[in-house]
Amino acid sequence: MTQKKNVTFDDIAKYTNFSKTTISRYFNNPDSLTLQNQEIIAQALIELDYKENKVARILANGKTEFIGIIIPNLILHYYSEMLNQILSTYETFGYKFLVFAGNEQEETERQYIQELLAYKIEGLIILSHTIPSEELAKLPIPIVTIEREDRQVCSVNSDNCTGGRQAASLLHKHNCEMLLHINSPSNPDIPAYGRVQGFLDYCAEHQLKHRLILRETGNSHESMQMHLTNILDELAQLYTGLKKGIFISNDTQANVLLNLLYRKYGRLPEDILLVGFDNSPVSREAVIPISTVGQQIDKLAYEAVSLLVEQMNERKKRRPVPLTEPVHKIIPTVLYERETTRS
Amino acid sequence: MTQKKNVTFDDIAKYTNFSKTTISRYFNNPDSLTLQNQEIIAQALIELDYKENKVARILANGKTEFIGIIIPNLILHYYSEMLNQILSTYETFGYKFLVFAGNEQEETERQYIQELLAYKIEGLIILSHTIPSEELAKLPIPIVTIEREDRQVCSVNSDNCTGGRQAASLLHKHNCEMLLHINSPSNPDIPAYGRVQGFLDYCAEHQLKHRLILRETGNSHESMQMHLTNILDELAQLYTGLKKGIFISNDTQANVLLNLLYRKYGRLPEDILLVGFDNSPVSREAVIPISTVGQQIDKLAYEAVSLLVEQMNERKKRRPVPLTEPVHKIIPTVLYERETTRS
Repeated sequence: MTQKKNVTFDDIAKYTNFSKTTISRYFNNPDSLTLQNQEIIAQALIELDYKENKVARILANGKTEFIGIIIPNLILHYYSEMLNQILSTYETFGYKFLVFAGNEQEETERQYIQELLAYKIEGLIILSHTIPSEELAKLPIPIVTIEREDRQVCSVNSDNCTGGRQAASLLHKHNCEMLLHINSPSNPDIPAYGRVQGFLDYCAEHQLKHRLILRETGNSHESMQMHLTNILDELAQLYTGLKKGIFISNDTQANVLLNLLYRKYGRLPEDILLVGFDNSPVSREAVIPISTVGQQIDKLAYEAVSLLVEQMNERKKRRPVPLTEPVHKIIPTVLYERETTRS
Repeated sequence: MTQKKNVTFDDIAKYTNFSKTTISRYFNNPDSLTLQNQEIIAQALIELDYKENKVARILANGKTEFIGIIIPNLILHYYSEMLNQILSTYETFGYKFLVFAGNEQEETERQYIQELLAYKIEGLIILSHTIPSEELAKLPIPIVTIEREDRQVCSVNSDNCTGGRQAASLLHKHNCEMLLHINSPSNPDIPAYGRVQGFLDYCAEHQLKHRLILRETGNSHESMQMHLTNILDELAQLYTGLKKGIFISNDTQANVLLNLLYRKYGRLPEDILLVGFDNSPVSREAVIPISTVGQQIDKLAYEAVSLLVEQMNERKKRRPVPLTEPVHKIIPTVLYERETTRS
C-alpha cells in the first residue's frame, strides 16, 4: 500500500495563513474558533487531502470515536441480532465498536471495562445483567443499557408491559378457556418482567381464567426441552378438554415447545394456541411460523446509539450540561399473528 | 469512580534507579534491555501499582492490542457463533476486537479497513467474501481469513473436502439408492467448494448413483423455502420409489427442508435421509435433530487468532522475519449422526 507523505499542522497553517496554534485549536476545541474560520480550515483539509493521525488526535483531545459494547452472549438470536443492528449504525454515526461477550462473568466484565477506559472509549452500551446500574453510574463516561436493570443509568427498552397485554389479548380473541404464561422467575427490576405484569393485568381486567408458571428452564437446549416436556405433561393433565392459550417468554422457548408437540402429534393440537416473544428469526423459521410479540430490535439499537451519541456530544461542548437524571426510552412492541394462533 | 494519582516514568526511574530513557525503552522496545532488567522494571510496576496510559503508549510504540474483524453478517448462526468464539479469546490473548458487519458492501468495507488502519490496529480477521485476497495481501498489517478465498493471505479453514465425503459415506452406509447434493453455484476458489468435491469424489470411488443440484436459493427464509419446495417436488417426481439421501450445504437450509417435509407429511418420510453442514444450533433445535457434518467453530476461531498473534508478535521483534508465503491451517470436520439419518 502506497503511503502519501503526511500533511502536517505546519502545512495547514501555511495554506490557510492561520497560526499553528489556531490549527491545533481547530482539532482540539473547534468551538473556540468562529464558524467561518472552522469552515476555512475544513475546506483546506479537503484541498490538502489531509489524513489525520487518529492516535495523535486521541492523545490531544481524548476523542476516540470508540464505543464499548458488553453483551452476555451471541448464542441467543436476540443478542446477535441486536449486535448486528448496533454495528450497522457505523454508517450513520461513524462510531467504531469494541465488542465483548461477557458470558455472565462479572469480574471479567469489570476488568474489560477498565481496559476499555484506559483506551478512552467515549461511551458504553451494556446488555449484560451482571453489574448493577448503581456501579455503572459511577463510571466516568456515558452509559446506555438495553433490556436490563437500569434504575441509575440511561436505557432503551421495549414496552414489555404492553407486549404482555398484546399476547394475552390475542389468546383471548381466539376464545382460549385457560390462559397460561410460562416465564423464568425474575426480578421485577428487569424490564422483561413487564411481560408478566402485562399478562396478569389483562387477565384480571377481563376476568380470564389464567395461570402463571414461573420456572427456571436453564440456558441449554436440552435443559429447556426437559423442563418444557414436564410443563406440557402437567398442563395436559390439569386442563384436559380446555382450549389452552400459552404465552411463553421468548421465541427460542416457543420453538422448543412447538417441536415437542409436533414430535408427539405430527402437528399443533387444536386445543393449544401458542405465542412467543421477540420476533426472532426462529419464530419465522420454525416448523410452522410462530405468532409472537415482536421487539423492534433495529429501533432499540438505533435509539441506544443515538441516546449515547447525544451525551457524548454534550461532553464535547465548552460547558457541558450533564443530565440531571437518567433518560429511559420505551420502544413499542408489535404483534405478529402467524400459524400457532389460527383456530 | 476514584482515580488514583498516576505513576509517571519519573516515579518508576527513581524507584528502580534506572534512567527515564531506560524506562521509556522498556515500554517501547523491551528487547533492547537485558531480560534481567526487564524483570526488575516489571516487578517495580506491580509494586507501584502502575496504570499505564494506553493511548500514550500506542502513540509511542504503535502497539494497540486491537484486532479488527470484518464479518459478512450476524444473521447466519455460523457467523454469530464464530464471532462469539473469537471474542472469547480475549481471556487467553488479551486482544480487543473492533467488529464490523459488512453486509457485503465492498466499498464500505474498504472505508472501514482504512479507518481501522488509522487507529493502528495490529491485525485483521476477515470472514467476508467481498475483497479479493490479492488486495488484502497489500495491507500493511497481518491478515487471517476464515472460510473464504485465501490464495494470497493466511487462513484457517475447515476440511470441507473430507466433510463432503463424510456426508456421502453416511448416506451410503444407510443404503440410499440415490445420493443428492444441494448447494449454490460457487467458485472452486472458496473453501466451501470442497464439500461439492468431496461428495463427488466419494460417489465416483464407490460408483454410487448421484446428482449435484447447484442452485441459487437466496439469503432470505422465504426465498430458501420457495427454491427448496421446487427442488423437493422435482426429486419426488424423478426418483419415486428410490431411497433418497440428501446432503445440503448448510444446517439453515437443512432445517428449511425438514420443516417443509414435516408440514407436508407430519414426519420425515422413510424414503428421505438428510444431512446438513456446520453443526449450527439449529441442527440440534430443529423439529427432529438433524444429522450434520460439524465445523469446529471454537477451533477455527482459536487457530485464527493464534495464527494472527504469532505474526503480530513477530513484527514486534527487533529483526522480524516475514512469512515467505501464506500459511493455511485446516481444521477437521466431525460427523454428527442424529435422527434424520435413522433408517
